[in-house]
Amino acid sequence: MRAAIFRKGEIVADTLPDPTPAAGQVLVKTLACGICGSDLHARKHAHRMVEMSRRLGRTPMDLDRDVVFGHEFCCEVLDYGPATQRKLKPGARVCSLPALLTPEGPKGIGYSNENIGGYAERMLLSEPLLLEVPNGLASEHAALTEPLAVGVHAVAKANIRGDEVPLVIGCGPVGLAVIAALKLKGLHPIVAADYSPARRELAQRLGADVVVDPARSQPYASWTEHAAMSPEQKAARPALQAWLPALKPALIFECVGIPGVLQQVFEGAPRDARIVVVGVCMEPDRSEPMLGIMKELNVQYVLGYTPDEFAYSLRLIADGQVDAASLVTATIGIDDVAGAFAELANPERHTKIIVEPWR
Amino acid sequence: MRAAIFRKGEIVADTLPDPTPAAGQVLVKTLACGICGSDLHARKHAHRMVEMSRRLGRTPMDLDRDVVFGHEFCCEVLDYGPATQRKLKPGARVCSLPALLTPEGPKGIGYSNENIGGYAERMLLSEPLLLEVPNGLASEHAALTEPLAVGVHAVAKANIRGDEVPLVIGCGPVGLAVIAALKLKGLHPIVAADYSPARRELAQRLGADVVVDPARSQPYASWTEHAAMSPEQKAARPALQAWLPALKPALIFECVGIPGVLQQVFEGAPRDARIVVVGVCMEPDRSEPMLGIMKELNVQYVLGYTPDEFAYSLRLIADGQVDAASLVTATIGIDDVAGAFAELANPERHTKIIVEPWR
Repeated sequence: MRAAIFRKGEIVADTLPDPTPAAGQVLVKTLACGICGSDLHARKHAHRMVEMSRRLGRTPMDLDRDVVFGHEFCCEVLDYGPATQRKLKPGARVCSLPALLTPEGPKGIGYSNENIGGYAERMLLSEPLLLEVPNGLASEHAALTEPLAVGVHAVAKANIRGDEVPLVIGCGPVGLAVIAALKLKGLHPIVAADYSPARRELAQRLGADVVVDPARSQPYASWTEHAAMSPEQKAARPALQAWLPALKPALIFECVGIPGVLQQVFEGAPRDARIVVVGVCMEPDRSEPMLGIMKELNVQYVLGYTPDEFAYSLRLIADGQVDAASLVTATIGIDDVAGAFAELANPERHTKIIVEPWR
Repeated sequence: MRAAIFRKGEIVADTLPDPTPAAGQVLVKTLACGICGSDLHARKHAHRMVEMSRRLGRTPMDLDRDVVFGHEFCCEVLDYGPATQRKLKPGARVCSLPALLTPEGPKGIGYSNENIGGYAERMLLSEPLLLEVPNGLASEHAALTEPLAVGVHAVAKANIRGDEVPLVIGCGPVGLAVIAALKLKGLHPIVAADYSPARRELAQRLGADVVVDPARSQPYASWTEHAAMSPEQKAARPALQAWLPALKPALIFECVGIPGVLQQVFEGAPRDARIVVVGVCMEPDRSEPMLGIMKELNVQYVLGYTPDEFAYSLRLIADGQVDAASLVTATIGIDDVAGAFAELANPERHTKIIVEPWR
């Protein structure tokens, strides 16, 4: 089969043997697979990712061997391995958490030498994790289940009480998924910041009420304008807090994931802000704990999603509650994956590029 | 009056004019004032503290002028300024939050050119903040209200659910206050780590069930031994989590406050750990966000306490629920404050040194 392979630090199109489903596994045809920012990170910081996996006691990628990235996929059932229930017929379209169930626990798909990701014509999935794609939902939109689940999970981990005013820093696919998930929670106004006009427009389409260009105005200043307490809230404060700015609670989502951004959030955040770190920063970072201390900030690092959040995200897209279509800016074949990795650096041109390995 | 003054980077004993109480203020005699680790930090990192205050929009200390530190005090009412209710008679012993109420909000006592701290014979307090010391409680123990309140506040900000196993990193006065506050919450076992045998003994006296010498065994390994889920808890987990270590939730209190410790916590912490940063690290710090992300850690930075927590802490000491006496390792006069700052570097010799400026 054909695949876009991560080999010696580069993405190359080549052929690989077709995989064979083992017990509990399903052989599928990859219909659509999104390119994730983490894949771009992984190509750039592969050695760091390996080191981190090793330190966390996980099986790291062997960078001398081939890896096929791709963990945002929609597939078609082709065949079943032994010990399977086969409830879905061949031809059924499915999504799945990017993991294979094994006796030693789930093993990730997409950053592994063994478990081939979605930039290949065929892959293996675990039968118990299959979710049938509701009839009529386009495969390239079903493939957005995974990135949407990241936003759904981040918002779930934020433990929203209902009185917060959210600020989303960065409106790439992760920030956009967070905005979509916040909109579903009914929080308003949602303030979102990104340097890119195209990304700000998408942010509005997905639910941001206020968008900020950090090159023109400070996101925290815009947030403050939209976070004033009501006169009742102001009057209900304890007397000793009367001197504090009368602002609703801040809930800041860091969706950029490069060094220095968390320190910027620490600098800009108001007192008692809760910060959810959704952007995946793979390099060491520097910040001033004193800012966190003086403001009593809370930082919640998040990753991934639960199986329930994943299934919920697929339903959200299928029901049209999240406008997934607006995120897809291109569909490409195997041969164009390497080029797409470079293209994705330009936020004006692309948000989500979908690989269709069967092309 | 005599005072131990922070002047040009050093602590010097000298005389200052007696303060005069303004409207709403009370002139008090300082009976006892604890030396806080923050005072040692402030002497060493005064310029950094000034810069931080400025960046946070607060009035910074002018380091060319005198400052009198001391924010853990017990005092005796001497006289009242205008516009006061005078419910407590002269001679009454009082504690107070280290702040003066002003029309512009509370202003801190102890890190200010204007508001003299407790290393002086006399100081000014705000009448509405006075708490009478329950009869019979020694002044040097009442002075421990402030550091205990730091621990009470840190534990309150941890939002304890009741199933956590706490790990306290560092058993200086802050860590010990956290241990005392945890004991009152009924959480067991409390695991605490410190290199000093004297500090570990104090930790046990204040409520630690397990103490660890990090030079001999890894605190997180000891924590893991004491955090195993019960068979019922283990059985109640979702199937997809069955492969995760069957550990109770971790609640880690960082009570050291020097660069690098938070990164150590990130490295050692189990998945989903909540970390409360109580130690005040005044320098920039470096950590790996990927560790936080992969483990979905939560970091709550804390500072200070509420008026209610402060009053509660005084009652805890007065009622004998916290063994404050065990923390006091010396009482000294004004002339010995400079020497005490140096002495406090040795954790075997001292925990809390109390200044008695009237000596």
